[in-house]
Amino acid sequence: MQILDESITKNTIKLWFLHLQDHICRDLEKADGGQIHFKVDPWERAEGGGGRTNIMQNGNIIEKGGVAFSAVWGHTPEKILAALKLENADFFATGISIVLHPHNPHVPIIHMNLRYFEMTNGVWWFGGGIDLTPHFVVDEDARFFHQKLKTACDLHDELYYPKFKNWADDYFFIKHRNETRGIGGIFFDQLNDRPKEDIFEFVKQVGQTFVPIYTHFMQKNSQKPFTDKEKKWQLVRRGRYVEFNLVYDKGTKFGLDTNGRTESILMSLPSEAHWEYQFPILENTPEYYTQSHLKKGIEWL
Amino acid sequence: MQILDESITKNTIKLWFLHLQDHICRDLEKADGGQIHFKVDPWERAEGGGGRTNIMQNGNIIEKGGVAFSAVWGHTPEKILAALKLENADFFATGISIVLHPHNPHVPIIHMNLRYFEMTNGVWWFGGGIDLTPHFVVDEDARFFHQKLKTACDLHDELYYPKFKNWADDYFFIKHRNETRGIGGIFFDQLNDRPKEDIFEFVKQVGQTFVPIYTHFMQKNSQKPFTDKEKKWQLVRRGRYVEFNLVYDKGTKFGLDTNGRTESILMSLPSEAHWEYQFPILENTPEYYTQSHLKKGIEWL
Repeated sequence: MQILDESITKNTIKLWFLHLQDHICRDLEKADGGQIHFKVDPWERAEGGGGRTNIMQNGNIIEKGGVAFSAVWGHTPEKILAALKLENADFFATGISIVLHPHNPHVPIIHMNLRYFEMTNGVWWFGGGIDLTPHFVVDEDARFFHQKLKTACDLHDELYYPKFKNWADDYFFIKHRNETRGIGGIFFDQLNDRPKEDIFEFVKQVGQTFVPIYTHFMQKNSQKPFTDKEKKWQLVRRGRYVEFNLVYDKGTKFGLDTNGRTESILMSLPSEAHWEYQFPILENTPEYYTQSHLKKGIEWL
Repeated sequence: MQILDESITKNTIKLWFLHLQDHICRDLEKADGGQIHFKVDPWERAEGGGGRTNIMQNGNIIEKGGVAFSAVWGHTPEKILAALKLENADFFATGISIVLHPHNPHVPIIHMNLRYFEMTNGVWWFGGGIDLTPHFVVDEDARFFHQKLKTACDLHDELYYPKFKNWADDYFFIKHRNETRGIGGIFFDQLNDRPKEDIFEFVKQVGQTFVPIYTHFMQKNSQKPFTDKEKKWQLVRRGRYVEFNLVYDKGTKFGLDTNGRTESILMSLPSEAHWEYQFPILENTPEYYTQSHLKKGIEWL
């Protein structure tokens, strides 16, 4: 399954992610109105490498958002070796991780992660994905989102979108609520089934869809008026987001478990969340429509 | 380690927990001002047994509180057998679980859990504890709390308090924050080192400390004025409470993992919580004092 390929170096990939972080932050700041900037927080990892966590808090549209880059290396932690059944060798991992929580409940929460992993014994792969968590599911928006992802996937392999769409449905699932986190998107892991160069091109393609997708929702929905009831529902949906991230998300659990940088890992949590015992949802409401569409296997296109 | 003892039946224990639930809810309602009542939510478990989850939302003093009773039985789930290295036999488990989140940041969050487990092959034990999570650590209050627990423990075994106090320090620990959840309390599990009757008496003693402890804090601190800054800090502390419960709490994880009743399990979560990237804490403030006392091994008495 491993294809050695020296044409793309880890440094090339790392620099591309770093560049993507800059580019995304600049475009998000602009779409947000330009007054509020990401706070750039560089950090180092004692065992090798480090990162740059960019955070926006209290923007005009984005209430709390993180765009994090990291490139770390060194001894592969025992837990990773065991979990992934890998032979012992040093590792290098680089990636970019984004979560944006908007003020307005009509603007969705978005998440993107792109990552590259390699070991000194030749093992390598890419992983990542984008998924959308609307507080209110709106078919038109869901179609827009999934169409953008499908278009990006189809440029590389027509089997990618259906496969990675199902993978996202399975991955972003809150088992104890029997509901998906949102309307899914695409998710892929340990991708190394073709030359590294080709997969890297695909990963770049996914990375480049992020700004057009999210700025579309910012422009379209951020000025929509909303009620207190809609705001409360947003905080309930954010509560579920917290539940997913702390209970199921592999990256989060793994990071916390292996002494990762907590503040960077938990940048994904919203500014505010709300829990209520048996939160009531009335039939024939947008909340009801949303709740009933938080399930696997919906074909949005 | 197992001592068979038929003098106390599972039904006696179950009824005592049920009675304790009634008594605690009545006393809390009274201390809260008497206008707001617990909503009583009975439920059944398809595989055997059920429970009664009592919830108060938007009381005068208690913003969100749950006092849950359950008694469940049947086939012991494989995961329990494996985790606890038990031989296969049917089980019976009953217990009471309480978490109270007050409006006023000067009133602490409190948690109590008391539980009894037995199997048809004669295995049995009690577990439980009480721990306090003040949003602001105040020495006098911490001493009051720990003294009440020590007094209850000492009536049964002078080794209990030091042992169970350390156990609580270890258990209520948020590893990824390198801080304890609060000022601890007592925690014990799989307690069966003496006749069942004696341990049951101890468990009852612990259960009876709950109301005097918490109503003391309700009366003492619920009318204290507080600032927006103090309220915000409360929401940050609650965020840590959410992190502990979803990432580490064994009961929560186990319940969610074994298809438990989600709404009852997650009644422990606060109404509102707040996360901020690198929340600033200034030196020589009550927040700083609190943060610096969220560590293991503090002898409050």
